[in-house]
Amino acid sequence: MNLTVEDMVDFARGAAFLGAGGGGDPYCGRLFAQQMMREYGVPKVVDADDVPDAAACFIVAMLGAPTVTIEKLMDGKDADLVIDTMEQVTGRKVEYILPAEVGGINSTLPIAIAARRGLPVIDADGMGRAFPEIHMVTYHVYGVPISPVVIANDHMESVVVRSASSKSAEDISRAVAMRMGLSVMISAYPMTGADVKRTAVRNTLSLAHGIGRAIAQGRHGDGPVDSLLDYLRTSAYYNKCAVIFDGKIVDLLRETTHGFSIGRVVLEALDGGGRRMDVRFQNEHLIARDETGLRAIVPDLICMVDRETAEPITTEGLKYGQRLKIIGVSAPPSLRTSEALACFGPQAFGLAETFEPIEKLLAL
Amino acid sequence: MNLTVEDMVDFARGAAFLGAGGGGDPYCGRLFAQQMMREYGVPKVVDADDVPDAAACFIVAMLGAPTVTIEKLMDGKDADLVIDTMEQVTGRKVEYILPAEVGGINSTLPIAIAARRGLPVIDADGMGRAFPEIHMVTYHVYGVPISPVVIANDHMESVVVRSASSKSAEDISRAVAMRMGLSVMISAYPMTGADVKRTAVRNTLSLAHGIGRAIAQGRHGDGPVDSLLDYLRTSAYYNKCAVIFDGKIVDLLRETTHGFSIGRVVLEALDGGGRRMDVRFQNEHLIARDETGLRAIVPDLICMVDRETAEPITTEGLKYGQRLKIIGVSAPPSLRTSEALACFGPQAFGLAETFEPIEKLLAL
Repeated sequence: MNLTVEDMVDFARGAAFLGAGGGGDPYCGRLFAQQMMREYGVPKVVDADDVPDAAACFIVAMLGAPTVTIEKLMDGKDADLVIDTMEQVTGRKVEYILPAEVGGINSTLPIAIAARRGLPVIDADGMGRAFPEIHMVTYHVYGVPISPVVIANDHMESVVVRSASSKSAEDISRAVAMRMGLSVMISAYPMTGADVKRTAVRNTLSLAHGIGRAIAQGRHGDGPVDSLLDYLRTSAYYNKCAVIFDGKIVDLLRETTHGFSIGRVVLEALDGGGRRMDVRFQNEHLIARDETGLRAIVPDLICMVDRETAEPITTEGLKYGQRLKIIGVSAPPSLRTSEALACFGPQAFGLAETFEPIEKLLAL
Repeated sequence: MNLTVEDMVDFARGAAFLGAGGGGDPYCGRLFAQQMMREYGVPKVVDADDVPDAAACFIVAMLGAPTVTIEKLMDGKDADLVIDTMEQVTGRKVEYILPAEVGGINSTLPIAIAARRGLPVIDADGMGRAFPEIHMVTYHVYGVPISPVVIANDHMESVVVRSASSKSAEDISRAVAMRMGLSVMISAYPMTGADVKRTAVRNTLSLAHGIGRAIAQGRHGDGPVDSLLDYLRTSAYYNKCAVIFDGKIVDLLRETTHGFSIGRVVLEALDGGGRRMDVRFQNEHLIARDETGLRAIVPDLICMVDRETAEPITTEGLKYGQRLKIIGVSAPPSLRTSEALACFGPQAFGLAETFEPIEKLLAL
């Protein structure tokens, strides 16, 4: 697959959808990727199967609260510093750029940096969506060590963290990120092609592009939400999906605290029946409940889109009175194993509910 | 000069005095140094003049709040990790261990680690006392870059911070230290012998030993406080000194917050006249005032000792009802320059008062 400069509009829209409310507004990230692609050329997007087993694959991602991230523009020098430092500390030259998450800014950023460095980017990621913490990746779940973690900011400051514990490395790195301005570049889990093949969620860049294109095409045809659902049903991972609510926002609480955007949003149905849905988030939406009980829960995706255009809405874009459809989507199978649920299932976010697949909750 | 295992008792007492209330209780640090000296042999203590200009000199120090530091024992593996990591990132093999501060634990630690590594330790430091922040050293004041900063803890976690800004490196490192348990090993300001000769406060290990010995000798003679003052008056830096208060503690406020021990202590004179002295501290004592006004102010040393034995009392050892003498001591000249005062003078601690040398305040 190749992504052109023009494809990035659809791609960023699809990535925003897969962000499940988090991952940051992809608008700035899309502009940055397009600028890098125009300046340095379009990067090759390669299938994980085509990456040699011994190849050095480096992640590059932004870490921070989306509410801060959208206020900072990118210029790529901090990403260069992260990659150069990772090369120094691992003693390996980077051969492939690997996305950490396909949701939000961190899906467009690896494409931008691959363009900038003249490297291929792998059509895969570690989440198949977005998650708020560094260790919430399939790379971690399936045994790739997190260290060294490299962090840099646009003041050309860098930090290298080494710990045997993913959770501890995450804690230290987030403390560093908060001190460095809560919007920093990061690389972690340096790995080989063999590691990628064993642990990554495959083809997610292609899927993000397909999702964004389906929404755009639906706007000229049968309606964007239907077009989106039709596309998801044909996909390898996201094929169990449904609109779980159609309503407007009647209550919204959102705080930037402890390095996260944390809050809840309540919607009321537009059909006048007074039904309500309550959704809680920590950067990403975690749990959706209505009067009948649980409707969708992490790691399955809870995505909010404009009810007319199906434009994905991130948590920092939520507003009182907004009219939205909430779409529940099945997570990729490697996110639903017991090891995976221990890392980013409901209990990892302090929820009391246990994971139930959306197809079971909704009898799809 | 050489320090024997037995000398460490006097040395640690002198270092506690020069800590000016901070630097941590030297008791554990002294035991650790003695253990290392017994196990690996006594290290050479060399004059800065005898260090070759090109020699690689590495600092090793503990960073943390004394209230936490005294609750954690040392085993040296974290210091090894700090030094090994500093060697990796600088590409130089350490040749000399250099103390960061002569006050408290960070005076005995370099001796312990020099013994452990079979290296000489330089008879000098970057403060001639203790200070609460990493950049508050003459190394920084006189132009040695702080980066890379290496931090490690006893879980064998390490962090390397690089920044062009000393203040920013300090802020990031303290955030890391807080996350890593508020008692970590650190190395920074890697420098050459020429840098040491240009920037260090010389002969301070010898002076700490002399101070501790003078107190001990006074206990069998004319009285330890007089013996201490007599010795200080013969020293190169600390020769302006006086007992500025003799009283008991009637009020004490002490908090561990923002990574520091912060507070104030009020003493009332023992002569029944009701005179009071108010001393404020941030790890170290910063300012001493009585009814007549300012009596001593940072960077001059404000040291509290038991009024009978002259045993130095650190801020975490202060207790209601304790009977103390407060001794004001002139700081080394290189701590009193305008560049130095900008770094660790009264304004650096948020005080409104400007620096006045103790010899002027007390008309010595």
